[in-house]
Amino acid sequence: MTPETTPEVNQTVAPGVDLGRLMGEIEALAAFSDTPAPSVTRVLWTQPDRQARAFVLERFQAAGLRIRLDGLGNTFARWVGRDDTLPAVATGSHTDAIPQAGRYDGVVGVLGGLEAIRTLQAEGFSPARSLELILFTAEEPTRFGVGCLGSRAMSGALDEAALLALRGEDGVGLDQARRAAGFDLPLDEVRLPSGQYAAFVELHIEQGPELEREDLDIGVVSHIAAPASLLLHFGGEGGHAGARLMPGRRDALLAAAEAALALERATLEAGAMDAVGTAGLLNVSPNAINSIPSRVTMGLDLRDTDAGRRDATLARALAGAREAAARRGVTLEEQFLNADPPAQADEAIMAATQAACRARGYAARPLVSRAYHDALFMARLAPTGMIFIPCRGGVSHRPDEYSSPGHIGRGVRVLADVLAELSRG
Amino acid sequence: MTPETTPEVNQTVAPGVDLGRLMGEIEALAAFSDTPAPSVTRVLWTQPDRQARAFVLERFQAAGLRIRLDGLGNTFARWVGRDDTLPAVATGSHTDAIPQAGRYDGVVGVLGGLEAIRTLQAEGFSPARSLELILFTAEEPTRFGVGCLGSRAMSGALDEAALLALRGEDGVGLDQARRAAGFDLPLDEVRLPSGQYAAFVELHIEQGPELEREDLDIGVVSHIAAPASLLLHFGGEGGHAGARLMPGRRDALLAAAEAALALERATLEAGAMDAVGTAGLLNVSPNAINSIPSRVTMGLDLRDTDAGRRDATLARALAGAREAAARRGVTLEEQFLNADPPAQADEAIMAATQAACRARGYAARPLVSRAYHDALFMARLAPTGMIFIPCRGGVSHRPDEYSSPGHIGRGVRVLADVLAELSRG
Repeated sequence: MTPETTPEVNQTVAPGVDLGRLMGEIEALAAFSDTPAPSVTRVLWTQPDRQARAFVLERFQAAGLRIRLDGLGNTFARWVGRDDTLPAVATGSHTDAIPQAGRYDGVVGVLGGLEAIRTLQAEGFSPARSLELILFTAEEPTRFGVGCLGSRAMSGALDEAALLALRGEDGVGLDQARRAAGFDLPLDEVRLPSGQYAAFVELHIEQGPELEREDLDIGVVSHIAAPASLLLHFGGEGGHAGARLMPGRRDALLAAAEAALALERATLEAGAMDAVGTAGLLNVSPNAINSIPSRVTMGLDLRDTDAGRRDATLARALAGAREAAARRGVTLEEQFLNADPPAQADEAIMAATQAACRARGYAARPLVSRAYHDALFMARLAPTGMIFIPCRGGVSHRPDEYSSPGHIGRGVRVLADVLAELSRG
Repeated sequence: MTPETTPEVNQTVAPGVDLGRLMGEIEALAAFSDTPAPSVTRVLWTQPDRQARAFVLERFQAAGLRIRLDGLGNTFARWVGRDDTLPAVATGSHTDAIPQAGRYDGVVGVLGGLEAIRTLQAEGFSPARSLELILFTAEEPTRFGVGCLGSRAMSGALDEAALLALRGEDGVGLDQARRAAGFDLPLDEVRLPSGQYAAFVELHIEQGPELEREDLDIGVVSHIAAPASLLLHFGGEGGHAGARLMPGRRDALLAAAEAALALERATLEAGAMDAVGTAGLLNVSPNAINSIPSRVTMGLDLRDTDAGRRDATLARALAGAREAAARRGVTLEEQFLNADPPAQADEAIMAATQAACRARGYAARPLVSRAYHDALFMARLAPTGMIFIPCRGGVSHRPDEYSSPGHIGRGVRVLADVLAELSRG
């Protein structure tokens, strides 16, 4: 235990967890960023992302884990169990971060997963099944517009052809980008067989307000809400802002503005707390104060716990966008990035999580995950569960994202207990 | 005359003008661009802008003109007259171009101004007053958000302190940027005394549809419409698009979307053909598909031939923006870039232009300029006029901007005739 951690917190809330070491690593990782502290910006295969990968890889190796990398840079670090022929038990998350994000999203599941393994090692635990810690490539959609890139490809939801078709806004294709980052293994070997893992458990901050509001320590995720995301490409007619008179204008931005408001209206009309809709991305061309916008790309994100209701909301939003575009003489191309089905957590993993919380005296309850997670795709490969910890004010994807050391420690302790239970063989 | 130009066009429509040379120079200049042909992107002090400056400077010198540069890079090329102590007669325009623009806006007044001087030289004309060709720095507002940067500073509408406060979106201030581009003369010497010029005449493409629609050769500008431009900064609250539920959201982009639509509505309600309003620039932060927009900057441009009506339109638009922001719990900061008064053309210059058109057999009529021009600020220093030529479909600020060689030749011929008349002394 390092001096930074109070003995009280460590011993009473998360026995066996070296919280000082873990918090130091979380702090060190946050320094790899393209924007100044407290914000973290770590987009796939930028220098900070590559530095963060090197940092965690070095720590995986220091813990004696056996490393495997695939063609997308997904990193598998295995604590070899007594019978390595059995399907392994996996945990893990991501370290990439959208622009101006915080330091906990994803990171708690990677460095916390490592700490859970080190805790079990220090306690002399001997797993029957191997335990595998996975660093997933690009859970965030920032670079190629697709969330959960690594786990999606591992699950087979993105095949080699689909991967090769991906291109960032900088015009660089995925294949060129991955090779520049040092990953050139075959893409058709990224997909994993469905018997690869006996279970997958992801530790993550809630990214919502419920645990904090109810003063709970742990959320036992019951299912992951169904996200849909798409790009709307509006094509109008540009021209000089002073010289082109108002009649007959075909302004792409005004059509997009109406579409963003139509999405909000459709989401509110769903009449469900779990229905959320966001226009988070908007790029204008030529984007000059004295030019009429000729092209706009807008990114929409819709989620709901009910896939049918989500699709109905989306249909209403798209109807509004199409009507506005048609009325304004603006073309509209709809590009679906994904419309994934929701995932259910495995009941045995939920039960093991709840049992661990009871045994440790942590307050817990089942919870819905409204955010996207690699667990959504791992659920296609293996029985899957998620362990949530509170984050202040439900804030995430912002520089002021925060989870306390005590909550992180309890999450790691529960993860270690669940991994131990699942890997007994 | 070069072989590229048909003798017929050259001799019948623009006698004395070396149209082949001029069109070749316009084509050569278009190659200096940050985007591929046919588009031209030449933002202040980027490499293409600097290359374009070097290209025209070399040609100014080849024509025997005496060069002076000021601290902003405004370039003055003087054909010294018989009495250089008399106030000179000036012409000129700009070579910078917004992203994805065309090759004629501004360029026709610079290279066409040079061709007018070379035409007079070839004809053996001897001016009493010196003739000065001005390459203005940054007529386009792209880099520092202020249109007519060079002429604005020359007229005294921007003083040294205001210049030093300018900062681009890249965070680089004007002083650092100009020094990096090689301009370090004192900024307090950019302003010109009001007796400097006897007259200023700018040749420019119309950037509107009227001349082409009426099959006219020349527009004699009577006044320049009054432009106002401003940035609206919306500040909301970010967060994860999945995890933050709809109630209580403070989405900066939705407030901006309403403001853009309010501007359109206010402009249409002005009930005047000359009232135009555009939201041409919009930047979102963090601009990620799965994040609620926390900050949006939107640029608005309003113009009208009637300054009072323009200001009333602006007031209605701002009322709509403020109401939307307040209702959504989003902060709104209004940053005026300019709200310049309109300029009237000098009657003697208009008369000289109309006389030249009559003498040459060119169809002409008075016209309002709806676009911003350096002439707007030169009108504060000297009697000013503008000569417009048609452009196809009224299209400007787009890659397909086009003016025919015949129209360009006629514009140069009229400009040469007017400069000769005004410089007789």
